Amino acid sequence: MTGKTRGRRPTMRDVAEEAGVSPALVSIVFRDAPGASEQTRERVRKAAKKIGYVLDERARLLRSHKSLDIGISFHTSQPFHHHLLDEIYSAINGLDYGLVLSPKSTVRDEKTALSSLVSYRCGAIILFGTRLSKEEINEIVGDIPVISVAQELDAPYDWVSSDDSFGIHRVIDHLVDLGHENIALANSPGDAGATTREHAFVSALKDRDMTPIVYSADGSEEGGARLAKELINSDNLPTAILGFNDRCAFGIIDYCIRAGLSIPRDLSVVGFDNSEVSQRFYVNLTTVAQDTKRLARFAAERAIQRLKSINLESQERGILVPTELIVRETTAVPRSGNRP
Amino acid sequence: MTGKTRGRRPTMRDVAEEAGVSPALVSIVFRDAPGASEQTRERVRKAAKKIGYVLDERARLLRSHKSLDIGISFHTSQPFHHHLLDEIYSAINGLDYGLVLSPKSTVRDEKTALSSLVSYRCGAIILFGTRLSKEEINEIVGDIPVISVAQELDAPYDWVSSDDSFGIHRVIDHLVDLGHENIALANSPGDAGATTREHAFVSALKDRDMTPIVYSADGSEEGGARLAKELINSDNLPTAILGFNDRCAFGIIDYCIRAGLSIPRDLSVVGFDNSEVSQRFYVNLTTVAQDTKRLARFAAERAIQRLKSINLESQERGILVPTELIVRETTAVPRSGNRP
Repeated sequence: MTGKTRGRRPTMRDVAEEAGVSPALVSIVFRDAPGASEQTRERVRKAAKKIGYVLDERARLLRSHKSLDIGISFHTSQPFHHHLLDEIYSAINGLDYGLVLSPKSTVRDEKTALSSLVSYRCGAIILFGTRLSKEEINEIVGDIPVISVAQELDAPYDWVSSDDSFGIHRVIDHLVDLGHENIALANSPGDAGATTREHAFVSALKDRDMTPIVYSADGSEEGGARLAKELINSDNLPTAILGFNDRCAFGIIDYCIRAGLSIPRDLSVVGFDNSEVSQRFYVNLTTVAQDTKRLARFAAERAIQRLKSINLESQERGILVPTELIVRETTAVPRSGNRP
Repeated sequence: MTGKTRGRRPTMRDVAEEAGVSPALVSIVFRDAPGASEQTRERVRKAAKKIGYVLDERARLLRSHKSLDIGISFHTSQPFHHHLLDEIYSAINGLDYGLVLSPKSTVRDEKTALSSLVSYRCGAIILFGTRLSKEEINEIVGDIPVISVAQELDAPYDWVSSDDSFGIHRVIDHLVDLGHENIALANSPGDAGATTREHAFVSALKDRDMTPIVYSADGSEEGGARLAKELINSDNLPTAILGFNDRCAFGIIDYCIRAGLSIPRDLSVVGFDNSEVSQRFYVNLTTVAQDTKRLARFAAERAIQRLKSINLESQERGILVPTELIVRETTAVPRSGNRP
């Protein structure tokens, strides 16, 4: 830092002085706009480096009166959200957009997380697995565009979600093929996807004149373990159970194994997400895979289109991304059942 | 939104007009500064709500020429970092500071994450488990204060770390008490804490005239499993092994169990972190607990002190937070060993 700028951060004006050009030209160089020779650009960049100038994103956004920031609300304890986050960073890599992250957790609710993104003037907001209604979102964000990932939302919001219903139907096909007649869903009411999954589960079983059994658990190992304990204690164990996600499924498996049961001999268990843990413990989990990369890419692209105010009237407001059943080691013929 | 402000965001000036007061008075109300009656404050807040005014954090920071934002660089796939994040949000809850998050991952390196925090003009930066040297950090942040969590840093930076050395010595005490003479460390070279842990491990064993065995793994289940495979294939399994963290320890356990070994009968395994997974799979893990809350609180408080330019010359630049050995089910008397 030169003597002149000591005690304060160097500005574009300082760079201009150092390089012997006008401040407007410095701005052109830093915006990568046309109007400067490569030689001049090089001189300006060198001058900036010499005096320690750093482009001030905030000042730039404020001057442009147009935000280039995309806000993201994610859950700190959901591995699925961390993968989505990584994929979104990959998707915008090299583009001139910033991401502002706002976590939700047991100590910070989703409305707080969302309000924070609004106060940082994000130009578009991506919500992972929102539990908020369209009205609740609207009250907080006003006219800022919102893209919901893993949860359908009413107009005017965009959304992208896995085709959970398709995945659930494949799970039931698989379990019925194995001979199961007593199949339960360990759902996580209120969570993104819970309603769709329950609906698909109930209709798939009713189509086969079977009785759907739906239990309340949640999307954590603890929730799965709690349910398994209740079912074992009340001697109500089905022959197959579908966890709300992989974490819930592993909670069920862990409790059962510690209670002396054998998986899948005594109970077939299916997860949802195909997260990293699905092949990491005990036995490799049969699960429904979500396409994280496609979910993230759609969300990032749509957010950028909304920032640019591109007319999307001819485009779909929401899309379903295909899911896939991955059969591994936690599903088998039921103990007392017969392959049809 | 009224007709007047249609098409642009309402400003403090619009609020002033709506409430029939001066813009300066609106500013007083929003800064919670003295100089307005409760009645006036109420009127201003109502007017703001009516026209949809939201306090613009960025504009406020820019005007004050002093950042109230604390930047945090964290790893997307480390549960330990997510807990630290939650605890830091708890620590600053209700205070007038914002957190700006910048993730590092396999697709986004730590220097990129750090540069992004600088370009957002954070007034102080907290680094979780940094792998950067003091010089590398300095080149990116200039004179912005930095607080390192889980990794000691040279002056002028502040740091807070777990007393890993104490924890490692308690692990060796425990294993030697059980009769182990063949003890290995599965380290994660380059990771925060790796050097300290290796140093403590080597000195604890040398103090007892035992041969320290140090292997390179990493802080993931895959790294632990890879090492376990090598050791089993080369018939080199020690009687006890200390994983770099809980994830690494579970990778070792998982591979061994799938290979037909019994834990802890054939191999005692110790983790590090006491993370949520430590009591979730197979057997409950013997591990070294870190005090996440104290680590996070120190980092948050120190960042705020640095933002306020409080004189800290009489304070320690870095502190060690106590660790604790938690003995659970993955350590036992070695198969061929005798309790001394």
